[in-house]
This record gives sequence, structure tokens and C-alpha cells, in this order.
Amino acid sequence: MIVAGSGINGFEFAACRAGLRGRDGLDVGLMVCRQGAAAAAVFTTNLVQAAPVILGRERIRGGMLRAVLVNSAIANACTGDEGMANAERCAALTAGALDVDEEMVLVSSTGVIGEQLEMARFEAVIPELVARLSPSALPEVARAVMTTDTVPKISTRKARLTMEEPEVKIGAIAKGAGMIMPNMATMLSFIMTDANISPALLQALLPVAVEQSFNRITVDGDTSTNDTVIVMASGCSGGHEINDLNSPEAVVFAGMLNDITRDLALQIVADGEGATKLVTIQVRGAVTDAEAELAARTVADSALVKTAFFGSDPNWGRIMAALGRSGAAFNPASTAILVGNGELVKEGRLVSAAAERSAAQTMAQKEFTLTIDLRAGEAEAEIYTCDLSLDYVRINADYRT
Amino acid sequence: MIVAGSGINGFEFAACRAGLRGRDGLDVGLMVCRQGAAAAAVFTTNLVQAAPVILGRERIRGGMLRAVLVNSAIANACTGDEGMANAERCAALTAGALDVDEEMVLVSSTGVIGEQLEMARFEAVIPELVARLSPSALPEVARAVMTTDTVPKISTRKARLTMEEPEVKIGAIAKGAGMIMPNMATMLSFIMTDANISPALLQALLPVAVEQSFNRITVDGDTSTNDTVIVMASGCSGGHEINDLNSPEAVVFAGMLNDITRDLALQIVADGEGATKLVTIQVRGAVTDAEAELAARTVADSALVKTAFFGSDPNWGRIMAALGRSGAAFNPASTAILVGNGELVKEGRLVSAAAERSAAQTMAQKEFTLTIDLRAGEAEAEIYTCDLSLDYVRINADYRT
Repeated sequence: MIVAGSGINGFEFAACRAGLRGRDGLDVGLMVCRQGAAAAAVFTTNLVQAAPVILGRERIRGGMLRAVLVNSAIANACTGDEGMANAERCAALTAGALDVDEEMVLVSSTGVIGEQLEMARFEAVIPELVARLSPSALPEVARAVMTTDTVPKISTRKARLTMEEPEVKIGAIAKGAGMIMPNMATMLSFIMTDANISPALLQALLPVAVEQSFNRITVDGDTSTNDTVIVMASGCSGGHEINDLNSPEAVVFAGMLNDITRDLALQIVADGEGATKLVTIQVRGAVTDAEAELAARTVADSALVKTAFFGSDPNWGRIMAALGRSGAAFNPASTAILVGNGELVKEGRLVSAAAERSAAQTMAQKEFTLTIDLRAGEAEAEIYTCDLSLDYVRINADYRT
Repeated sequence: MIVAGSGINGFEFAACRAGLRGRDGLDVGLMVCRQGAAAAAVFTTNLVQAAPVILGRERIRGGMLRAVLVNSAIANACTGDEGMANAERCAALTAGALDVDEEMVLVSSTGVIGEQLEMARFEAVIPELVARLSPSALPEVARAVMTTDTVPKISTRKARLTMEEPEVKIGAIAKGAGMIMPNMATMLSFIMTDANISPALLQALLPVAVEQSFNRITVDGDTSTNDTVIVMASGCSGGHEINDLNSPEAVVFAGMLNDITRDLALQIVADGEGATKLVTIQVRGAVTDAEAELAARTVADSALVKTAFFGSDPNWGRIMAALGRSGAAFNPASTAILVGNGELVKEGRLVSAAAERSAAQTMAQKEFTLTIDLRAGEAEAEIYTCDLSLDYVRINADYRT
């Protein structure tokens, strides 16, 4: 059930133009829960961690947040002590303007690595953000976090967790276009709900949701220094606190959380830099789950396979070659490949010229599934990817200029 | 010492147009040592292996070859029993025309995966090849193996192995433009020498040469089903047989072999599909050799780094992000990055705007070195890569059409 635009009880939002790196549009956003929200987060696994990520890891330990300040244009990564001081100062300015404890304010940044935040612009814009806070401005924050994204990413759900409980809402935004790879690369997502959920339960549910969503997408095999997913629960729906992982309420909420993160993940990959197509890579019949995932990721990240997607070329030889180097165990002479529902390869060989033509037609669509059956075992995995287009190169050859 | 065009005693060569898949230029080549040459080979590590690779692994065990037939346009990979029968038939036809034992004939193919060799064309062309054999036609064979290569790759050396021994020559050709990655992907190389070297010594020296040359280059992180490097030694130089790895002769010959394979490897990466620049990635100061290589490969394969090379953008943040996800241990705040001889990053931070401008100028050149000092240990590694250009996508989006 999509309820775009409606508010999430307990939360206020604002976005402004600070003009970071000369940007024209919205570039800073603020998400606030004045009374304090239970909170949990997942951060990048990259060894190189942006200042806001280092600060965020510390502050999320308390399990409660009152505000998250986010900016695009500058990642505040590889910025040393000055970068850390700037991240802390941004949080302090926000806390001051809101009159809350700065330990309960997180900051999050995305953009160019290695440049310092322009602090004068933050000083000017933070009071303006606080003055503009409104329950309905989440879509504007979704626009403020965009870098090379071409569309804002927002997803909302509402449901009753049990028949007896009041309805709860979840609203979430995300950004991320390039550098999308396994561990949530160059992506930010902020998930807010008015459900009443303990911090410990949130921290248990979030990694599971991330694993089946943001960690299943790949644009270019790169991962970033700034990835952050934060979930905040205001408890303002009026229901009683949910803290048992096995309760019916937790199960329903986990379903909503998984659903909303998967929706945002697919929005991200469909808007991959230069992407013209969203492709689901499904691997079946692997010996182990790890090998199924390895095979799916190797195909999903192969530059040769991705350019063939761009050209609508059912070049199954490239798929076989990628599978063969993936490390997954299988017999090439048993392998089957389907494009959509059409069998392209059977027992390691092309089915027919007609099957190839039909696969080319399917691949010309905006969205299709490639299914690979290794026929070596029972394990399965699914990865979402996009094609590698001329525009990917155009975008990334002059991202900074 | 380059001696292009001169013959290698004991070897004859020929190339013809068979018209495979409607190709216009030369597409089959033959390399012959009628009296038999000591031989060794290294093949792809891909689980999916082309028919000629499967056949070649068997036949190289004897340690002696009389001929290698090579074709471009069709890889004869994923072609099942029919493909194996075709590979064997090509070898048999060649052996028959030369009147030699077919067990001493190898075949090698490169091109599109999944299509059968057009046998009628091989039947027609093989006698023609044998009729045309000449000591000076190696450059034509180098042209016949090209697929998306834009220039033929050939390298020759001559030297005395000791003061007492006669001069020996090595001549070698290679092909490979895309699908170049660690383990010799989509590349073929044939190395011929008139030195007198035992098969066992050749088999000891070849993997070492390959490891520091063809296994150090990367175009797109993909590996192929057909990679093959073959070395043949006719012994026609007149010197005595070299069979001791530690003899001065073996050491000098190994140096020549390493030199020639490295030269060909650099020719391949400089001619990478769509490549406009050859970039050497040098990692120093890693904790272990494996981590040094991992760090260098991760940077060399990063699509974001490679598009920045294309755009001459000293986007060191992308380099730091790639290092951070590589798995190598280091402290980002200690890292140094040089472009050419110019220090771009020191202790994890940009040196200056002037350093950045100077790096951009260096990156605008056809060839430059990126040096990364992790300052975590003593280990080093070097990988050769190219940029990711618009033409890479153009070439690969319609390779087959």
C-alpha cells in the first residue's frame, strides 16, 4: 500500500539549497524526531570510512536519535581531523538550532571524496532548515540527497501490525546511482516509522532487510566510503512497544521493512548511472548458497555481459565465461540459461536461432530476468543489476568537472 | 634487441583468409616446426574450457609439437561433442597436409563463443596454408589471430645464452583486446625459439614468465574460455640442450622469455578494447604480496577509476575507495598516491590544488604510472591496465552484430 506524500507521525522534514560546490538545487536535508526515536544503523564495510560514518557508528550506540542532517555534493571522506571536526560541528549546529542533545544528532554526507565541507554554508543553512521543518517535506529531502541520481527515491507503506494495534506507517528515502555494489556502496537510505519498536529489535531487523535489498544490487562493482542506512521509530502510532523478534507484530513489521528496502534497492539499480535496463540475475542449482551468490554476482558485474545487455545481445558465451571464472562448481555441459521465460541455452548449448531472436526481443525491454540453472545442487541466489551504457562512461569520465 | 621480420630457425609460418563468419581479412594461421619442437603451454583457468583448450592440455603432455593451427572469429567454446570432433578434425587435416603425427598438432581458436567451426572452410584452407609456409610469415599469423585487436602484436629478441654458444632467437605473437584479466583472459600467445631447451625446462619457465606478464594485465576484469600460451623450441640454433634451471644459459633464456612476454602483455593492454591509455598501477608498502596484488587489481579493475583515467581526472577519492574495499590492510590516513612522479595524496589527503592540476596533465598522456604507497609493510605489486572509454562500450554492445 503506497501512501506517498503523507506524513509519518512524530517526524518533521526540511530541505534547502546551501550551494555546496556551486550546486543549483537542494543539497541539504534534515529529518527530525523531536521527542527522540529508537534508532539503528548499518554502515559501509569499506576500510576507508567517511567522517560522518565514523561519527555515526559512535552515536548510534545509544539507540536513540533526534535528528539526521544530510548533504550531497561533498562526501566528507578522506578529510582527516578537519573532516571529523566539521562533521561534529554540523551535528552541534543542528542540535543547537533544535535545542536537543548533540549526541542524538547524526550527520550523513555523499558526493566527492577528499574535499572539506564548506562550513559557512552549513552555518547559514541549518537555522533555515529548522525554521522550515514540516511533516510533509520528506520528498524534498529525497531530492536533496541526489548526486548523479536522475530521480528521487521514496517509498512508503502502512499497515496494522495486529488487528488490535493502530495502523503504523513507514516512509523511506534513498540515494545511489554509481558505486553500487555488494555492501551498499555510495548509497544512503533513511527509514522512518511511527511504530513503537525497541532499538535492539530495530538493530536486529535492519541488517536482515539490508542483506536482501541494498546488498543484492550492483551497478559497477565499486563500493563507497559513505554508505549508511538508518532506521528510526518514533513510537507515535500509539501502539505498545514491540521488542520480541518472534512476536506477530515484529514479523509483520519486518515484512514491511524488507518490502520497503527492496523497493528502494530496485529503484536505485534502475537509476544506475547511465542504466537503460534493470536486470534480475537468478542463479539456481548451485552447490552452496555462497556459490550461487558468487555466480550471480560475477555475471551481474561482468563488463562484457553488461555491455551485451545494453546492446540487447543474447551473448550467452559471455555469460558462460563469467560463470566459469566465478568459482562456482558446475558442469558447463549441463547448464541452462533462460532470458525471461524463454530457454536460450540447454545443456550448455544454444537452443536454436529462434530462441536467440526471442531472447534479443526480451532483452530490448526495460526490465527482464536472466535465469541460470547450474544443475549442480539446490542453492539459489538473486542479484539485481543494470546494463553498462555509453552514458555510464560519459557520466563518470567527468563527474567532477 | 628487436629483430622484427627475421625468421626463427626451424619454423615456418603461413596465414590465409578462410572467410570464417564472413570475415574479410586473414583468419587462420599455421606455425610449423617439421622436425618437432620441445613445447610447453599454459591454459585458461576458467571452468568453461573451449574444445581446443581441452585437446591442447592432452597433447602438450608429450612435450613435443610439430604444428599449431590457429583461427580467429570463432572460439569453438561451449560447442559440445561436435566442437571437440571439429578441433580434432582440424588437427588431423593439418597433420595430414604436413605428413606428421596428429598427436603433435595443436589447434587454438578465439572469437565468438557457442558457434561451431565452419569445417568446409578449414578443409579448403589447410592445404593452402601448408603450400604457403615460409620462414618470414610470422607477422601475417599475428594479423590472422586478431579479433577486436586494432594492431597485430609481435615481439622478437636475439642473444647469446653464453659467450661460447651460438646466438638464439625468440619470436612471439599475441592477440587479446577485451576479456583480459588475471588469468590470461581471451588472449593467445605463441612463442617460438631456435634455442635448444628441454620440454621440462620450458614447462618450468613458462608459468613464471606468464605470471609476471599476461597475468598482470587487466582490461575489464573478465576472463575467457580460450586463453592459451604456447612456447616451442626447435633447437636449430645449434647449441647444446639446456635442461638445468640453474644453468647460466637457462637464466639468460628465462630473462629473454620474461622480457618478450612482458612486451606482448603491454602491447595487449595498450590495445585494450577502446583503450586510449596504458596505466601501470604500482602498489608498495602492503603487508603481504597477496594484499599488494589485491590492492593493485582492485584499483586496476574499478570501473570508476578507469573512467576517471579516460577523463584525465585525478579523482583520488575513487582510488582510496577502491583500496578500502580491496581487503588489503592499511591506514587510510597514512596512504600516499603519486601520478607519474608527482605526489597527489600524502597521509591520506590531497597535497594541493597545484598537485591535482599537475596530475591531470600527466593523466592526459598515453601512458602513465599510478603509484600507491600503503605504508603498512614492505610488499609490492604491479598491474597494467587501461582506461574505460566510450569505445569500450560501443565495441562490446555490438560485438556480434
